[in-house]
Order: sequence, then structure tokens, then C-alpha cells
Amino acid sequence: MLIPTDFVNPTTPTTMRMLPKLTYLAPLLLTATAFGQDEPPAEGTYEAFMASGDAAMFTVNNLWILLSAALVFIMHLGFCSVESGLCQKKNTVNILFKNVFIVCIGALGYMAWGFNAMYPGEVGPDSWNGFFAVGSPLLNGFADETERAASVTAEYASYTIWADFIFQAMFAATAATIVSGAVAERVKLKSFMIYAAVLVTFFYPISGSWKWGTGWLDAKGFYDFAGSTLVHAFGGFAALAAIIVLGPRRGKYTKEGVKPILPHNLPLANIGVFMLFLGWFGFNGGSVLSADPEAVSRVFVTTAMAGFAGGLAAMFTSWGVLKKPDLSMGLNGMLAGLVGITAGADSITPWMSVVVGAIAGLIVVLSVLFFDKIKIDDPVGAVSVHGICGIWGTLAVGLFSTNPDHSFGTQLLGTLTVSAFAFIASFLLFFILKLTLGVRVDAQEEDEGLDVAEHGAPAYTD
Amino acid sequence: MLIPTDFVNPTTPTTMRMLPKLTYLAPLLLTATAFGQDEPPAEGTYEAFMASGDAAMFTVNNLWILLSAALVFIMHLGFCSVESGLCQKKNTVNILFKNVFIVCIGALGYMAWGFNAMYPGEVGPDSWNGFFAVGSPLLNGFADETERAASVTAEYASYTIWADFIFQAMFAATAATIVSGAVAERVKLKSFMIYAAVLVTFFYPISGSWKWGTGWLDAKGFYDFAGSTLVHAFGGFAALAAIIVLGPRRGKYTKEGVKPILPHNLPLANIGVFMLFLGWFGFNGGSVLSADPEAVSRVFVTTAMAGFAGGLAAMFTSWGVLKKPDLSMGLNGMLAGLVGITAGADSITPWMSVVVGAIAGLIVVLSVLFFDKIKIDDPVGAVSVHGICGIWGTLAVGLFSTNPDHSFGTQLLGTLTVSAFAFIASFLLFFILKLTLGVRVDAQEEDEGLDVAEHGAPAYTD
Amino acid sequence: MLIPTDFVNPTTPTTMRMLPKLTYLAPLLLTATAFGQDEPPAEGTYEAFMASGDAAMFTVNNLWILLSAALVFIMHLGFCSVESGLCQKKNTVNILFKNVFIVCIGALGYMAWGFNAMYPGEVGPDSWNGFFAVGSPLLNGFADETERAASVTAEYASYTIWADFIFQAMFAATAATIVSGAVAERVKLKSFMIYAAVLVTFFYPISGSWKWGTGWLDAKGFYDFAGSTLVHAFGGFAALAAIIVLGPRRGKYTKEGVKPILPHNLPLANIGVFMLFLGWFGFNGGSVLSADPEAVSRVFVTTAMAGFAGGLAAMFTSWGVLKKPDLSMGLNGMLAGLVGITAGADSITPWMSVVVGAIAGLIVVLSVLFFDKIKIDDPVGAVSVHGICGIWGTLAVGLFSTNPDHSFGTQLLGTLTVSAFAFIASFLLFFILKLTLGVRVDAQEEDEGLDVAEHGAPAYTD
Repeated sequence: MLIPTDFVNPTTPTTMRMLPKLTYLAPLLLTATAFGQDEPPAEGTYEAFMASGDAAMFTVNNLWILLSAALVFIMHLGFCSVESGLCQKKNTVNILFKNVFIVCIGALGYMAWGFNAMYPGEVGPDSWNGFFAVGSPLLNGFADETERAASVTAEYASYTIWADFIFQAMFAATAATIVSGAVAERVKLKSFMIYAAVLVTFFYPISGSWKWGTGWLDAKGFYDFAGSTLVHAFGGFAALAAIIVLGPRRGKYTKEGVKPILPHNLPLANIGVFMLFLGWFGFNGGSVLSADPEAVSRVFVTTAMAGFAGGLAAMFTSWGVLKKPDLSMGLNGMLAGLVGITAGADSITPWMSVVVGAIAGLIVVLSVLFFDKIKIDDPVGAVSVHGICGIWGTLAVGLFSTNPDHSFGTQLLGTLTVSAFAFIASFLLFFILKLTLGVRVDAQEEDEGLDVAEHGAPAYTD
Repeated sequence: MLIPTDFVNPTTPTTMRMLPKLTYLAPLLLTATAFGQDEPPAEGTYEAFMASGDAAMFTVNNLWILLSAALVFIMHLGFCSVESGLCQKKNTVNILFKNVFIVCIGALGYMAWGFNAMYPGEVGPDSWNGFFAVGSPLLNGFADETERAASVTAEYASYTIWADFIFQAMFAATAATIVSGAVAERVKLKSFMIYAAVLVTFFYPISGSWKWGTGWLDAKGFYDFAGSTLVHAFGGFAALAAIIVLGPRRGKYTKEGVKPILPHNLPLANIGVFMLFLGWFGFNGGSVLSADPEAVSRVFVTTAMAGFAGGLAAMFTSWGVLKKPDLSMGLNGMLAGLVGITAGADSITPWMSVVVGAIAGLIVVLSVLFFDKIKIDDPVGAVSVHGICGIWGTLAVGLFSTNPDHSFGTQLLGTLTVSAFAFIASFLLFFILKLTLGVRVDAQEEDEGLDVAEHGAPAYTD
Repeated sequence: MLIPTDFVNPTTPTTMRMLPKLTYLAPLLLTATAFGQDEPPAEGTYEAFMASGDAAMFTVNNLWILLSAALVFIMHLGFCSVESGLCQKKNTVNILFKNVFIVCIGALGYMAWGFNAMYPGEVGPDSWNGFFAVGSPLLNGFADETERAASVTAEYASYTIWADFIFQAMFAATAATIVSGAVAERVKLKSFMIYAAVLVTFFYPISGSWKWGTGWLDAKGFYDFAGSTLVHAFGGFAALAAIIVLGPRRGKYTKEGVKPILPHNLPLANIGVFMLFLGWFGFNGGSVLSADPEAVSRVFVTTAMAGFAGGLAAMFTSWGVLKKPDLSMGLNGMLAGLVGITAGADSITPWMSVVVGAIAGLIVVLSVLFFDKIKIDDPVGAVSVHGICGIWGTLAVGLFSTNPDHSFGTQLLGTLTVSAFAFIASFLLFFILKLTLGVRVDAQEEDEGLDVAEHGAPAYTD
């Protein structure tokens, strides 16, 4: 049987996101021999496989992974738009510039180092220690003949290695993008660019490998379907460390109390949130790692319903607490619900996904207010949405999963260790940058706005 | 034969959107037994089916329904953006808040009641009366063992029940969203929220079931492929009732004539229309209920060409009538063309789809001017685009369908009864709200704008 | 074997985008006989094929072409948004109006003439001369019985003729849209509308047929996978001719030097670029003409990595040259990278795609500065992004392709002849319009802005 149960059944106990490298369907090396042939394809070749009865299932699975990559790509537009929309007009260009840079450098860094660091290959102490793997550039070319022969005679995965790479590369950059929103409006551009490049290329793959690379957390039975912890809590706690080092925006916390800084463009933020929601169908749906009808349908339902429940819960919670129907809280509530269901989108029932999302929507409002109270300035609520709700979502698997192998204790261990790792690594890196290049623009630049001061152009003309 | 002709042939005479429940491929119940098995899958199980030669076709069909759900989801961003872009700056947050609320509550209401009310199961007088079915919450969990065993031994549908649910849930909320645009800039938030929740949860499934739930209109041979009547005319005439009860915006109709109220952000409206157009590929394309190449290709062509023809026709019509090339008319013309082809996207030829779309584009311009003349104030033209062109599209099936079973008389009966039902139900509900909570903000709030008055925040800062 | 290697192997030497018409799977004629049948499907019919083991592969291939059409459609929103965002506020409505018109008229013109002109059928001197084919309207209806019988007994292609049409129609309009950006802010609306309709309906299919219609360039071995030359250089050099005839915007080139005219809305331009990037997955990925896992995966990787590398290279190049981190250069760099990889996305290795994209990013910055220096005013950089980088991408195939049949000389010949054809045809057409209707608004209108002057409405209210 060419397509093994492991890859079409999303409830495989060990790991969702790691495939032994040899079982990839390695694509053809582009050589002259591939052109213009007329004879029937030799046995064990890609062409022979594509003429077989298994080709259609492989093709639809692979297509879904690629579409998911495109959907996760558009989340970067979501981040751009929600972060810039929620910040002040005078810092818009700066935010967009940072985010465009992150997605570019993130994917390249992942190609040059991160992918191989995060998915180091076979499980076990022989090939790696389960904690840290050395990365390396992806091969240039699509496969060598040896690998290819191995791949077509071995069991097939659900997609090619290149589909896997591009899907994971789109994921990788999100971690740094989460930080971008939190440090907005006062961070020094060059320092942030170095920070983001290091975070996504070197730090994200380390804790990512603990679970998805079949590392030590995976061995302990930790479960994180699509990244409540490995992506969102990682990004959220990296952000928390960064804004503690950075300090709040000037004039936010005054003797007279907290001065609200209004979002400059809510339709833009709204576009961003809907783009993120749309992309989440690929983020979670693609994490099934095949187009298995049962599993992907389930994930679409739990993902969407958690997002909707999160939006409603945050709308009503903020209405009760703030005495006004707050749009940006509603939008953050949808994101909170989505982050919350990400760890268990495949193993939580539909109505429980509503509960998980609603609790996330409640949490995010209280968390945003809490961080303002303790004077930690997070302009877009990134720590609350991604960090706090990322932890919540991971723990929710321990509480509500239909898989009896998932345990609260292991979930707690996993989410805390990854969050702690992100916090510490980010803190050290940002602190070193503070001591060397500096991480904060000067007061005059901050008041004037980074767009004109750093980029020489406003985002809007009159 | 596992995939019966009924589900791959979009021209099935009875109904397009209803499947007897037992023929769904009911997904697995998530139980301990599903994990870590090594023995070959037992006959009649999902696993056995997925190892069979029919699995690939099922997988691609199911994937297309899910992708269509994602595409219809993004139509909600379209509605948000087009409605807020066409209204005044001071009411932007209010419109976005309403629309975010609608999509959240709509999907949850549909899960808790509407889906089972709209698709009540087997046809015939034994199981339901063809007019009104009692809804109920969807099951929690993905299937019980009995259903599952039945499903895998029975004929298969093209997709799982959960794919069907999420696709239909994304549809459901559109009805209330159409109303949102028409009542914009003066409706009281709380009253509208109650109205929208009731409309989408309780009213939309009633008339929806008449056709897609195999009710009395279906029995009469009425045809509505993807909802020119069941979604768009329903929403448009519900909107008409609401704005009659509500009255026009202050200062719109003065003694000196109609005072034009300018759209505040046309690039935003443009984004909205393109998102709606994109989503329509899923709205109509997904209504094939499979990825059948012939049928979905046809629907893509007729849908797109009607939209383009509608845009052109509205551009030139408004240019002739208003003596200037009007962008917002062109945009509404694209939507009008799309609404117009929705009832017959699978049964109208390509060139006739151009004609149907062009006539819709002509109609929408005249209709918008007509409603302004009779002083019915519809800030975004929702009644014209969705209501009037929804009726036009339904009648166009009677005129131009290649299926000889479609008759003008039946189409007329169907579209008028559904529109009348929507109008009356909406009128009564909105009138009751008017007598109790009130439906209109006070004059001062309206002048000041709802954003600051109700939400305490402007959409844009300077 | 029903799905021949030619259609699943993207490296077929002759042509990627042309299929002999008879091998399409012609969809069913919608007739009464198609409804309600119970007997098993007759041999050689569509129904029989769809019940066979080859149906699933055909279905997934066809679905991918349709999804690609939807993705290319959304590129038009990208063009709308990036062009209007990069121009002045007072000309926004005009730009949006033009672009909405172009996509509408482009698809209709392609249906009425262009498609059959661009894909004239069988190769060879008997049926056409390889240089110019007479177009004709597509058939109305989905196939006649004769064609249909032929198609189901012959070898199958990977998609229906209607999927092919809608995919190609979405492509076609892009050529005129590229021009739209270059002539923005001073072109006369009516003249441009005539120009655009003629360009996309009559001129684009001529040079398109040289390669994709298996014309003389195809016979010479010229390679252009998805249109670096046939779409982008074509559009870019048509634009260059137009702006030479048209002249620069008033006040741009003064005695005191070049006066920068600032973009009015950078978040809008950013949305546009991300939409273009997203759509490019369909533009390039769909040009595989099947969902072949190996080929589409490869194309996704090379496309994305070239775009990212282009963005980075342009950011750093402009930072070095202009001494500030310029967002709009970074955005144009991403587009430049995408244009650059379009000709060779299937035949360039992953790391070489990074190189190709990075060079494109470098080129686009220098090219934009160069055209400003020689006082050719291109408000959005369309000539540089699409024209110059289109040539670069085509030559890059000659330099870096893994297919030894690709030669630098042939690539140079192809890209120069198509660019020259576009330039000359566009120049003549625009010049005739200049002599007759005039192509430029008067000075007062230009100063006031086209939105109020021509359309009677501003894009934004205060």
C-alpha cells in the first residue's frame, strides 16, 4: 500500500509534522533525460508512479499542502494590515517595512538553515539529541538520483519535500511577525531587522524541533497540532521579553493614568483580521498534512467556530467591562479564538471548540487590560492574543481532547518550556542589541513618527 | 458504484443542495480505538474506504467544498469593506462591528439551530411538511458508530457532513449582512444585533428549506442553483422592509431634492467588491456540490462573465444617465451581474450569461435611481443589487435555461413567495423591535456619527 | 493511457500552454437527455469517463486550473490597489475605474475574439502561419455532440476547455492593466478605454500566439513558462510607448530637478502587492497546466523565493542608493522578483531562483532611477517592474535553466521581438488616439485631479 495510514490519519500519536526524509516523494532531478521521452516509464520512477492508481490521491494531497502554503502566505498581509491599522498613522510605513522584510528574510533564512534545523530527520538519540539540531541549506535542485530511487520504492508521503518546505517556510516567519506588532512605534529599525532574522532563522527552529522535529517534547507525548505553542506562544513570549527590554511608548503611562493611543485605521485592521482568519484555514487545515476528508473537514469546523466564538465572547466581555462595544477587542477576540484552537483543532469536538474559542475571547480582553495595568505596552495586544491564548489553547488540549493520550501535565510542561525558551532567548538577544546598537529610537523621532524620521515618507498624503 | 450520478451531475432535477443524511460520509468518532492501530482496516470502515480506489475522487470533491467555504468566508470581508467604504466616515466602526458580529452569530446560530432546520432530512410528508422544520443543535462529535457504519456501506456523497455544514454556515450569514448595508448610518446597534441573529438563525432556514431542504417549492420544480432567490432576494427584501420601517437618513431627502451622501473611501469599497467577486467562485462553484470538472468549469465561466458584463453595463448605463463615469455604479454592476447569474450558473450558456449579467447591470442602475426617487434610502444599494437582481436572476432561469424542466411561471412563483416571506417576516420583526427597544439612534447621535457616539472610537485618526 | 505524459510533464519541449483542441475534454451539451437518467452511462461519454479510474486525476487537475483562474483574478485587485496607492489621492477613482473596466472588457474581448486568436489550433503551416490568426467568438454552449464524442474517445487533456478559457481570460487583462499604472494621473479616460480594449483583445493574442499558440517563436525553441515576456514585457513595453507619447505629469520634471510625487496611501499599495504575490501562485502554478505534484511544488518554491529575494535586494539596494529604507522600492522589488522568475519557474533550481529574483530586485531600483533620469514619467514603475524585469527573466532562462534546450540567443530573440511588437503596436495605436480623440486631459483637470474633474466624486471624504 503506497499511502500509509500514518499520513492520512491525523491522529497518529507520535507526531503530526515530521516525516522521515526518505519517505518523501522526491521530485525529479531536471536533466536532459526527462525531456521528450516516448518509451513507457521505467519501474520505480516518478513517471511510473504518476501513471499508477495512487497518483490521484497523492496529487490532491500535495495540492492541498501547496494551497495551504498560499493561505499562510496571505496571513502576512493580515499581520501587516492589522498591526499598521491598530497603530498610529505616523508609524505605518515603518510597520509595513518591517513586516515585508520579515517574510522575505524569514523564508530565505528557513531555506538556508531553519528547515533542516527544525526537521533533523530520523527520531532517536543516534541521529540527534532531541534538543538542538544543526541546520543547513536545502539542496539545490529537486533531488538526486539516489534519493529519488529510494523515494519511489519506499512508502510515499502525502506530498513532495518542496511542498513541505514552502508550507513550513510560510509558517516560520509568523513568529517574528508577532513580535513586530508588540514593539511597534518605538523600535529601532536596524536592530529589529537583526533580531527578527535571528529569531526566525535560529531560535524558532530549536523549540519547533522539540515537537515537530520529533525532539524531547514529542517523546514525552506533548501535543500541538498546528502551533498554539510552537508558533503563537513562542512569538507571544518572545514579544513580551522584547517589550520589557524596550519599555512603553512615550506618553502612554503618565501620572494621570493610562493614555489611550487610538488605532489610526480600523478598516485596515479589519482587513488584516479577515486575512488572518482566511489564512488560518491553511495554517490549521494544512497541518493535517494531507487532504484527508474527515480530518480536514473537522479542522475547518473547529477552527472557524472557535474564531467566531472568540469574536463574540470578546465583544460581549469588552462591552461589559469597558461599557462600549469595542471593535478592536472583537477583532482580537476572533484571533484569540483561532490561536486557542490551533493546538487541538483535530482532536477537540465541534461544540468544545466553541467553548475553547469563547474562553480565549474572554481571556484576551482581560489579558489586554492586565498588561496595561502593569504598564507593559503592547500596542496591538500581541502578547495577549498569541502568548496567553497560545498557552490556553495548548492546555485546552489537555482538558478537552478526545484523545486519551493527551494529558494536562504534559501540555503544561510543553507550553511553559517553549514559552520560557522564547522569552529567555528573545530577552538575551534583544538585550545584547540594546547594549550594542541600541533598540529604541530617540524621543524626538518617536514623537515625530518613524515614517518620516526613518523612511523619509509618510504613509498617506493629504 | 460508490459515487452516484446524482452527486456529480449538477443537473439533477430535484434538488442541488440536499443530501439524504444517511448518504453522507460520516466522519470517524474520535475514540481511543482510532489511535495507533496496525491491523488492516475492517471492511465497511472509513479507513477501508480511504484505502479503496474511490478515495481520491471523494477527497478532491470534499476539498473543493471546504475551499468554497473559505471563499464564501472571505465574502464577509467583502461585505464589511464595500458597506463601510460606501458609507460616511463617521459610521465606519459601527458597520464593521455589525458585520463582524453577524458572521460570528450567524455561524453559531446555524450550528445550534439553522442547519438542521434548513435541511430537515428525507423528502416527503412523513418526515416534514415541506414548509417549516424544527431546528436543533448539530451533534457534538463527528459521528456515532451506527451512523458511520451505515454511511460507509451506503452510497457515498461527495463530501463529509462537516464540510457541508461549514460551507452552508458561511452562506447563512450573508442574508443578514445584506440588510446591514441598507440600514447603515442610523440603525440602533442592539436592536440590529437581535434582528440579525433572529433573521439568520430562524427565518433564513425556513424559506431556504422550501427549495434546498426539498420543501414545497422544490416539489413544484422551482430552481435556484446557488441562491439568487434563497440568499440574495431573501436578504434584499428583508432589507427593504427594514428600511421602510426605519426611514431615510436625516438630511437625505430635503425640500430642495435628494442630497447626495458621498462614499467615504472608494478604494475600500473596491477591495470589498473584488473580495465578493472572488468569493463568488466558491459561492457558485461550491454549489455544484462536487468538483465535477464539467460542471464547476461551466459555473466559473458563467459566474465570471456575468459579473464582468454587469460591470460594463452599469458603467455605461450610469454614464449615459448621470453623464459621468461612476465608479460605485460600476462596482455595484459587477455585484448585480453576479447576483443575476447565481440562480442559473449551471444551466445558462456562456453567452447568455453575458446577457443575463448585462441586464442585471442595467437594472441595478435604474433600480438605485428609482428607490432614491421614491425616497427609500438604501445607502449601499443593497435592495437593488440583491433584491431586484436576485429576482431578475431567478426569472432568467425561466427564460434562458437549457434545462426544459425550468419554467418561467414556477420561477416567478418561487422568487415572489420567498421575497414576500422575507419582507413580511423582516417587517414584523423590525416593527416589534421598533415598538419595544426602538430601532433608530437619536438625531444627535446620527449627526455626530455612530462611531464616536456608540463605540467611543473613530475609525480613523488624523 | 488516458492522461498522456505531455500534459502532466511540464517539461514538454514544444509548448506549455497549447493543447490541440480535439484533446480537450469537451463538456456536455446541456440537453434534456442529460437529466434524470438511470441506465449506466454509454461508452465514450463523459459520464462513463467520470465513472472510470481516470476521473479523479482529471478532476484534481481541472480544479487546480480553476483555482488558478481565481488566483489570477485577484491579481486585478492587486493592480487596482498598488496603482491607486502609489499615485496621488486626487486620481484614485480614475485609476480604479480604469482597472475595473479593463478586467471586464478584457475578459469579454478575449471571449469574443482573443482566445481563438491566441490558440489557433493545430500546429503547422496548413492551419495557420505562425504569426497571426484570426479570432472568433467562443461557441455558445459547452460542446456539440460531435466534438464531445471525439473528445471522450481521444486522449484526455488535464482540464476542460472552459477551465482553460477562464484561466487564460484572467491572464489576458493583465497586459492592459500594466499600462494603466504607467499612464496614470494624466491620461484621458475615453481614449485609454479604447486603447486598453484594443490592446488586450487584438494585440496581446498576436504575440501570445507566437509562443503559446505554437507559432513561429515556439518553433524556434523560445521558452516562456508563464509569461515574463508574453505578458509582462509585452505590458511593460506597451506602457513605455504610451508614456512616451503621453509625456510626463505636469510639474514632475522642473528646472530645479525631479520633483518627487509621493504615494498617497502606502497600506493600500501594500495590500495590492500582497494580492499580486498571492495571485502569482496561480499565475505561475496554474501554468503547469495540471496539478502534477512535482512540477507545481517546484513552481511554488521558485516563485515565492524569487519574490522574497527580489524584495530584500530592492530594500537594500534602495537603502544604499537613496540612503533610506524605502517601502515602495521593497514592494516593487517583490514584484520584480516575481516577474523575473515567471519565464523559468519550472526550469530553474531553487537557489538559482533566489539569484534571479535578487538580480531583478536590484535591476528594478536602478531602472526606476534611470527612467526618472531620462524624464520618462512612470508613476508606479510599471515599465521597470514588468518590462525590464520581464526581459531579465526571459534571459535568465537562457542562463540558468536546467533544460539544455533553452538557449540564451533564442531567449533574447523572443523577448526582443515581443517587446518590440508591443512597443510599436502600442505606439501606433496611442499616437492615432492622440491625433484623433486626444490622449491627455487638459492642464486644469490634471491639477485639479481626475476624480472630481472626470468622475464627479472624490475617492475619500473628510
